[in-house]
Amino acid sequence: MTVDRRDFVLAASAAAMATAVGGPALAQPAGRKLGYAVVGLGGYGLGIIIPQFKNCQHSRLVALVSGDPAKAKRVAAEHGVPEKNIYNYQNYDSIRDNPDIDIVYVCLPVSMHAEYTIRAAKAGKHVLCEKPMAVSSPECEQMIAACRQAGKKLMIGYRCHFEATNLEAIRRARAGEIGKLRYFRSEHGFTANNPNAWRLKKAMSGGGSLMDIGIYALNAARYMTGEEPVAVYAHETTDRNDPRFREVEDMIEFELEFPSGVIGSCMSMYSANQNHILLMGDKGRIELEPGTSYRGNRLWVGNGRENEITPPPGPGATQWAGQLDHLSQCVLQNKDPIVPGEEGLRDLRIIEAIYQSARDKRRIVLKA
Amino acid sequence: MTVDRRDFVLAASAAAMATAVGGPALAQPAGRKLGYAVVGLGGYGLGIIIPQFKNCQHSRLVALVSGDPAKAKRVAAEHGVPEKNIYNYQNYDSIRDNPDIDIVYVCLPVSMHAEYTIRAAKAGKHVLCEKPMAVSSPECEQMIAACRQAGKKLMIGYRCHFEATNLEAIRRARAGEIGKLRYFRSEHGFTANNPNAWRLKKAMSGGGSLMDIGIYALNAARYMTGEEPVAVYAHETTDRNDPRFREVEDMIEFELEFPSGVIGSCMSMYSANQNHILLMGDKGRIELEPGTSYRGNRLWVGNGRENEITPPPGPGATQWAGQLDHLSQCVLQNKDPIVPGEEGLRDLRIIEAIYQSARDKRRIVLKA
Repeated sequence: MTVDRRDFVLAASAAAMATAVGGPALAQPAGRKLGYAVVGLGGYGLGIIIPQFKNCQHSRLVALVSGDPAKAKRVAAEHGVPEKNIYNYQNYDSIRDNPDIDIVYVCLPVSMHAEYTIRAAKAGKHVLCEKPMAVSSPECEQMIAACRQAGKKLMIGYRCHFEATNLEAIRRARAGEIGKLRYFRSEHGFTANNPNAWRLKKAMSGGGSLMDIGIYALNAARYMTGEEPVAVYAHETTDRNDPRFREVEDMIEFELEFPSGVIGSCMSMYSANQNHILLMGDKGRIELEPGTSYRGNRLWVGNGRENEITPPPGPGATQWAGQLDHLSQCVLQNKDPIVPGEEGLRDLRIIEAIYQSARDKRRIVLKA
Repeated sequence: MTVDRRDFVLAASAAAMATAVGGPALAQPAGRKLGYAVVGLGGYGLGIIIPQFKNCQHSRLVALVSGDPAKAKRVAAEHGVPEKNIYNYQNYDSIRDNPDIDIVYVCLPVSMHAEYTIRAAKAGKHVLCEKPMAVSSPECEQMIAACRQAGKKLMIGYRCHFEATNLEAIRRARAGEIGKLRYFRSEHGFTANNPNAWRLKKAMSGGGSLMDIGIYALNAARYMTGEEPVAVYAHETTDRNDPRFREVEDMIEFELEFPSGVIGSCMSMYSANQNHILLMGDKGRIELEPGTSYRGNRLWVGNGRENEITPPPGPGATQWAGQLDHLSQCVLQNKDPIVPGEEGLRDLRIIEAIYQSARDKRRIVLKA
């Protein structure tokens, strides 16, 4: 199994409403679709997010923000975005005068998340920001404060909270199907081939595999257990002579202690492909492999891999459609997103503790 | 998959000579079979070991040592052991006068390993001792010294060093089939149901799941990587209100740092069944599930579970036959066993560091 982050051919399951992680499904409103401006036409914004609006019920693409005018013009034409709704990074703040735009989706390198979230809030727009939320927890706090001050919603792009396989795994774990949960394990990795990618530049990414792909293991540890870790221990191995890893870590293993006694054992790496989640209870186990992929996630519940589960449809036709429409519905109904800025901040604080642990070679107790 | 430690229905593969872990195959000698005395007629000695002599080429059962005369008499009759070769724990030392006995196999609770190994050595017999070798590393050192002083061989019952699936996994890892090894993971557990079992009494077992089943993960981390860990970190979760776990630990997770940068992530538990080994290299992975079971071990090599491998036969008709005959051949040819007392001592020292780490909640550097 090769997990290809660039693979965005999507399973086209029927659109259906379901309960997302941590919150009840919102009633389906009639009326207009909210307008999204996508900021950043890189691999994720252009390749993954923009094609998703056709799967949405409450969201539509209305504007683009890009540093590449020709690319923006081409993408706008392809997706029916009027030329007047193309912005660049200089005139970005003038989105305040554009009533078409309700929500800004920040799909930029991590180091730009804070600035473009805060500018969007100041321009009176709601924000969906990719994860990791920012390069540091103080930046996350500033983003939350800016959105709160502007009275705007802030949601982080934790797509797995809208992904059918993960939702079904959570449901079964909470229903006690594997008894008392004892142990959680997740490894996430892929082979980073391009030494020039922004994710390998610390100033742009904030960190290495942990920030980029390990965050899936960390976030899954939290949503699968339903608990917040109280302490972490981490160990890192990186070949600093490898031109890809001069600035950021390759492999990092981290252990999470949860209040109930559940142990979380996680690992991320940039030098091999792995995408695996395991929950062990005293009456069985839940396994996902791949667990958080763009498509083709698989789920087994029982004592091994005898019993593969086909999950019921998630809240949207795809995990991204579910995510986009969730924020639209939150705006329409003035509800809080299930993965707000505070969720991104929590992960960043734990990530910072993991890095500190690896640096200091000691267990770090997390503040409550 | 339920891993049943009591399951001793064996795969009857053809007897074949193959290379055991860490050492070349010994040439097959002609001549007499060496005589084993099995000490302890509990589940393992009686249920697992004694039935294995029929699969051996160089070993035969010649004597029994038991505290239960009636049981010993019955077993002796079933297996063609003459009544004069039945011993108890009081007259055990008189085995020195019995030339039928070449080797003593100590299949007793862990706390008795040191005494019965040392008494055997003093009686002029070679020793095969079950793992874990003893309840503490000083005991291991005494056992090694006693056998050295007596000029007798000491081998520890690490059966997986003679198990075909593990040998094939090692061979492929060493051959570079998954590139540079980066990460090793192993979880080993089973549900301990009987609160009165000796393994749950600390005075007899020396410890909990780590000593009993976690040692498979630890030893596999060493033989699969071919390296010795330089530091450990561990975290334990045990419900001390559970009557099974008043004296010994249930679940313990431990992380091993290897000199090459390989990270080992291991876990053992007494409250769920798990038997899994994963090696991740930068070009693929090797997976075993179950990995160290009595039978039915499975092996995959590649990027996932597409490519299941049927290993060539191991050194013996079964892993136990290979183990028993290995020591016989070592005695016949005056060679050192591939899993000598020093191997058991190494594991005990690491186990002690793991317990210390869990107790002190800090990383422990291992002495070279």
